[in-house]
Amino acid sequence: MAEVLIGGSKQAARSYSFDEVAIAPSRRTRNTEDVSTAWNIDAYSFETPLLVAPMDSVVSPSSAIELAGHGALASLNLEGVWTRYADPDPILEQIATESAETVTAHMQRIYADESVKPELIEQRIKEMSAAGIVVSVAVSPQRTAELAPIAAKAGADIIVIRGTTVSAEHVNSDGNELNLKEFIHELDVPVIVGGCSTRQAALHLMRTGAAGVLVGFGGGASHTTADVVGIRVPMATAVAEVAAARRDYLDESGGRYVHVIADGSMGSSGDIVKAFACGADAAMVGSVFARATDAPGRGAHWGAEAWHRDLPRGERHLMNQVGTFAEIMSGPSTRADGTVNIVGALRKAMATTGYSDLKEFQRVDMVVTTS
Amino acid sequence: MAEVLIGGSKQAARSYSFDEVAIAPSRRTRNTEDVSTAWNIDAYSFETPLLVAPMDSVVSPSSAIELAGHGALASLNLEGVWTRYADPDPILEQIATESAETVTAHMQRIYADESVKPELIEQRIKEMSAAGIVVSVAVSPQRTAELAPIAAKAGADIIVIRGTTVSAEHVNSDGNELNLKEFIHELDVPVIVGGCSTRQAALHLMRTGAAGVLVGFGGGASHTTADVVGIRVPMATAVAEVAAARRDYLDESGGRYVHVIADGSMGSSGDIVKAFACGADAAMVGSVFARATDAPGRGAHWGAEAWHRDLPRGERHLMNQVGTFAEIMSGPSTRADGTVNIVGALRKAMATTGYSDLKEFQRVDMVVTTS
Amino acid sequence: MAEVLIGGSKQAARSYSFDEVAIAPSRRTRNTEDVSTAWNIDAYSFETPLLVAPMDSVVSPSSAIELAGHGALASLNLEGVWTRYADPDPILEQIATESAETVTAHMQRIYADESVKPELIEQRIKEMSAAGIVVSVAVSPQRTAELAPIAAKAGADIIVIRGTTVSAEHVNSDGNELNLKEFIHELDVPVIVGGCSTRQAALHLMRTGAAGVLVGFGGGASHTTADVVGIRVPMATAVAEVAAARRDYLDESGGRYVHVIADGSMGSSGDIVKAFACGADAAMVGSVFARATDAPGRGAHWGAEAWHRDLPRGERHLMNQVGTFAEIMSGPSTRADGTVNIVGALRKAMATTGYSDLKEFQRVDMVVTTS
Amino acid sequence: MAEVLIGGSKQAARSYSFDEVAIAPSRRTRNTEDVSTAWNIDAYSFETPLLVAPMDSVVSPSSAIELAGHGALASLNLEGVWTRYADPDPILEQIATESAETVTAHMQRIYADESVKPELIEQRIKEMSAAGIVVSVAVSPQRTAELAPIAAKAGADIIVIRGTTVSAEHVNSDGNELNLKEFIHELDVPVIVGGCSTRQAALHLMRTGAAGVLVGFGGGASHTTADVVGIRVPMATAVAEVAAARRDYLDESGGRYVHVIADGSMGSSGDIVKAFACGADAAMVGSVFARATDAPGRGAHWGAEAWHRDLPRGERHLMNQVGTFAEIMSGPSTRADGTVNIVGALRKAMATTGYSDLKEFQRVDMVVTTS
Repeated sequence: MAEVLIGGSKQAARSYSFDEVAIAPSRRTRNTEDVSTAWNIDAYSFETPLLVAPMDSVVSPSSAIELAGHGALASLNLEGVWTRYADPDPILEQIATESAETVTAHMQRIYADESVKPELIEQRIKEMSAAGIVVSVAVSPQRTAELAPIAAKAGADIIVIRGTTVSAEHVNSDGNELNLKEFIHELDVPVIVGGCSTRQAALHLMRTGAAGVLVGFGGGASHTTADVVGIRVPMATAVAEVAAARRDYLDESGGRYVHVIADGSMGSSGDIVKAFACGADAAMVGSVFARATDAPGRGAHWGAEAWHRDLPRGERHLMNQVGTFAEIMSGPSTRADGTVNIVGALRKAMATTGYSDLKEFQRVDMVVTTS
Repeated sequence: MAEVLIGGSKQAARSYSFDEVAIAPSRRTRNTEDVSTAWNIDAYSFETPLLVAPMDSVVSPSSAIELAGHGALASLNLEGVWTRYADPDPILEQIATESAETVTAHMQRIYADESVKPELIEQRIKEMSAAGIVVSVAVSPQRTAELAPIAAKAGADIIVIRGTTVSAEHVNSDGNELNLKEFIHELDVPVIVGGCSTRQAALHLMRTGAAGVLVGFGGGASHTTADVVGIRVPMATAVAEVAAARRDYLDESGGRYVHVIADGSMGSSGDIVKAFACGADAAMVGSVFARATDAPGRGAHWGAEAWHRDLPRGERHLMNQVGTFAEIMSGPSTRADGTVNIVGALRKAMATTGYSDLKEFQRVDMVVTTS
Repeated sequence: MAEVLIGGSKQAARSYSFDEVAIAPSRRTRNTEDVSTAWNIDAYSFETPLLVAPMDSVVSPSSAIELAGHGALASLNLEGVWTRYADPDPILEQIATESAETVTAHMQRIYADESVKPELIEQRIKEMSAAGIVVSVAVSPQRTAELAPIAAKAGADIIVIRGTTVSAEHVNSDGNELNLKEFIHELDVPVIVGGCSTRQAALHLMRTGAAGVLVGFGGGASHTTADVVGIRVPMATAVAEVAAARRDYLDESGGRYVHVIADGSMGSSGDIVKAFACGADAAMVGSVFARATDAPGRGAHWGAEAWHRDLPRGERHLMNQVGTFAEIMSGPSTRADGTVNIVGALRKAMATTGYSDLKEFQRVDMVVTTS
Repeated sequence: MAEVLIGGSKQAARSYSFDEVAIAPSRRTRNTEDVSTAWNIDAYSFETPLLVAPMDSVVSPSSAIELAGHGALASLNLEGVWTRYADPDPILEQIATESAETVTAHMQRIYADESVKPELIEQRIKEMSAAGIVVSVAVSPQRTAELAPIAAKAGADIIVIRGTTVSAEHVNSDGNELNLKEFIHELDVPVIVGGCSTRQAALHLMRTGAAGVLVGFGGGASHTTADVVGIRVPMATAVAEVAAARRDYLDESGGRYVHVIADGSMGSSGDIVKAFACGADAAMVGSVFARATDAPGRGAHWGAEAWHRDLPRGERHLMNQVGTFAEIMSGPSTRADGTVNIVGALRKAMATTGYSDLKEFQRVDMVVTTS
């Protein structure tokens, strides 16, 4: 990245958001029918490279099954309402209808009043397994050691360890820190871990043995990390940097390919397309699916950082509902704002620039614009 | 273009929109009466360098005749309402009055319910020919092989092959792709083709034998390609790059001058002036004329991408009506927003900077500003 | 200026507006009482470096007299209402009260219905002379040859030749062009001429023998040249470039100091301060004084470009009235928005950065910010 | 800093605001419990590095005591209502409830009608001393010589000399200027002095013997210096530059460490975090605490520049009240906008980037973004 001087001896890297970049068509075009959006990670194959973020507003056991039917991999949050409450429906209804003034305090209580229950973890995983889908679940780094083994034993196929920032070197004065490398090695399930946003941090995460790393802080529409703690790395730069770490690690490991998964800050199909152009192998999105009429959030959208006990860094957002999961994935669309037919938009972008698969599309020409 | 690093090894070209550039007067000025806005392409001469985009909201057979009287070259879309419906007036009325919520679905039906009819193509071309104007018609790349010969036979003088992105190397797995170079060679009518936005893509289009290439994605006010598919090349840079391709090709072809026609993203006379300053030979505009009280759109404006079956990338816009075609072209004006007296504004810009013809004006000094 | 590449071979100069720059205090401060804002041009001395733009909304014979009492030099437009109408008061009242939709057409009529009358020019100049003030009047370049001699004969002390862009080399096919150098030489009155915005254009104007050159296009709040004709040079850069021309000419002429007068785009005292920091010797402002409760415009503000017959490039603006001419000049102020106590603000800026006169203040440190 | 050319020979330093920069997590993380926010200056130790600005809207004797209990150091303005009025409560009530149109004139009267009284200075200091807190008071540079000795004698522990711009070389034609170096040397109390915003100005202030220097112009939400006098140095650059001066002076003085205290332009916890990342040792904030339900301003917020007699450069702002002083300092929070739990946010930022104390945190990686 280009270094700029803020002042004195303080250097900073000039970084770009998806709003500031775009894709430039090249000399070749292609039919959309001749384009493949297939994605494979570990032993699993998917029709699309879309993951659905482990947020209660978008992923329930039944929405995960529905989304799998459309080619997307949804992860259930093992610390959300589905493992705290036997019947979360009234809870989800409350969150969707509570007033803006009181909803944060309300959510803080909801997620504090009931603890995560191992038996509900097992039950939810079995519900999804029974439908024959690839079962993905997510845990926070703080509770990984406790919850991930339960999930693995219950039959989870892919485990996501997801926090706003996850490092391979967590320092803990009480000596109880998680050794990610050992943990992943011992766990008999492929792991996706993140977020991270720099080349160095990503390289360390790749060395833990993860199958994929999440790039970003897991939010955008639904969190406000920059305002509260001053932390932000614009996503176009973050994805491109972590893609560089993928190449670094591919060389150093003698050929292990760790998937780079853009996570958050993608509010439209155009943003998702740009993530692949910057080097992502897959994209984990939340708000795009929170706009589904059949989403568990009932039009509301929030992440775990919105109910943090003493320092919430996100809010419940009321989204414009634009169509079913099926329509949002593959259309048809009657909207021109990038909210419906995400896969169609990705295919169109690839076809317009003449690429036939996602790996090649990572090389597409880009421009920097003002937003 | 200046290359910037987004991150990792991902380079991008710093690109500029018309909003970010402006014209700087030089040491000489001139009377507006001493300025010529004449434009010639192939065997045809025009008083102004303005083309009107093949959009149903602005070009009908009768509006093409009216606009020709004011020195502009309007192209009729051969895949629009005039070749699908014997009497499109009620259709146009519906589009103009339908609510914003339902109009996209409505347009999708209108353009699907009736197919394009060869006999209507012939009829519309003859209507225009009968008025003695230079007849220009437009087709999409997908239907060029089918429709362009019909138009040529019916007497079209100039054929525009226009899509959001058109390449000289379209890859088609079923082997039925159009060989543009052979097609244009065999067609006995001059062809204008595009859009394109990079030097390389433009150079390949020029090699097909086209008389002119369109720069841009054919929209601005009326389409949202960037939000939906992430594709965008800001126009000041795109025009300047394609103008460089014109020079490249002029040399490589031993003197064939292919016209560079800026297409879209010009919402005011100021933007149109900047297109010439960046190197355009002519400008194709839509929204500027959709504001005419005598436009077929009745104040509504939309392009073909707004009624795409499953991935619309544009919307019907309701425009502020500002005057007749005659007033929008040459005034007089009572508005200071760049919507009326486009030709007067172009003459004023040329006079203020001391240039007497459009070719010279391509050399005018420019500045980069923030928008 | 730094050159940037728009695309192809099209270079442009990166330019800055007042919004993008600011003044940085240095290691020294000073008392505001120890600061001088005196300005001298030709044989005339003024307490402040503020000129008032020749616009009917701010300068009438009586407001020029009032403003002179506060140290400002106001120029009466010899092509405005005061030389067309014996009693312009009802005219000014109409412009102030006409609706936004119809006011441009109304102004076009007002300035067309009555011609400029030599006897009214004489009368207005004598009204001002009788008050003992330095009499300044303004003419457009088109009518300079006709009107300036009348004004000189009637006793004008300073003549301003002012258009949106004025060049020393106006090319006119009918051979009747004004030779500015000869004209100024023969006229027995000091001349201020402009606008210009580049170093080269300014240098040529300086060589005509002018006492001062105007930098800018004479507007900001009240004109829309950029939207209509695409012409714009952001003012911080324009002033700094013309200040460089002043140094060039000082050397080439063996010591003739031509005053650089920033004209327009200064809507607050902060902008005026920045003009001096960029190298201006004086500042000509309009909108700042149109906010006076005793301005002839009665709260309305417009320039000559707003009533152009067929291509208006400005509008009548209704301004927030903030105080009397006296208060706007020197306070006291109860507002914190830079609209009142312009001279106090200039003194404060100079004191805060440790400078005691305006010539030294041109060297003050500046920063570039985002606006 | 990177120099850019505005035009001609006018150079300027490219400067960055907090909005344009952000913190990038590195490869290490840490528990928030393992982070220290302790700050020491001279003989005094504090749990947090937060100072509260000497503004009547936030600091009264009782609020200073309350804030000290939460680890913050509040300075009482010795030229504010508490030293002019025996009972300022009705005065504060009036300022909070006066209409926006008349409040500036009202404040000008309030601060002019009653003079600063030495006996009230003594009384207020004793009130605070009696509570056992570190007593800090503030004076303007203009009245330092008169008021600071009174405060020192009455028992103030830390004296803040604070103006919008304070220099070590104030030039005064009447010969009565304050020699800061001599004055500070003779005063038997540690002094914090500012604002300043450049490396050179800061270095000179450090040489006066001050214990700390304030960076910035003491405002943001509550003053409009840029609009009125054109002066502004964006804070990220200002803090980084003054941090460089700290290193310069540390070397030249053979080891004297002068504290760099960011002052103003920090409206959220994210901004405060960024100040430390840019090199600040402590942060003085006003508006953040004006949002307290127990602030003396009753939801209103203003600084001394808002009641300047003839050139006010700030306004009374009505703030959104978000919690008690205790909650704003350390939570818990139900808001995600960076207004509550400032210390928690700072700890979170340090933990997320793996730093354990504030001095180390000054080295954290940063990025430049668009705002």
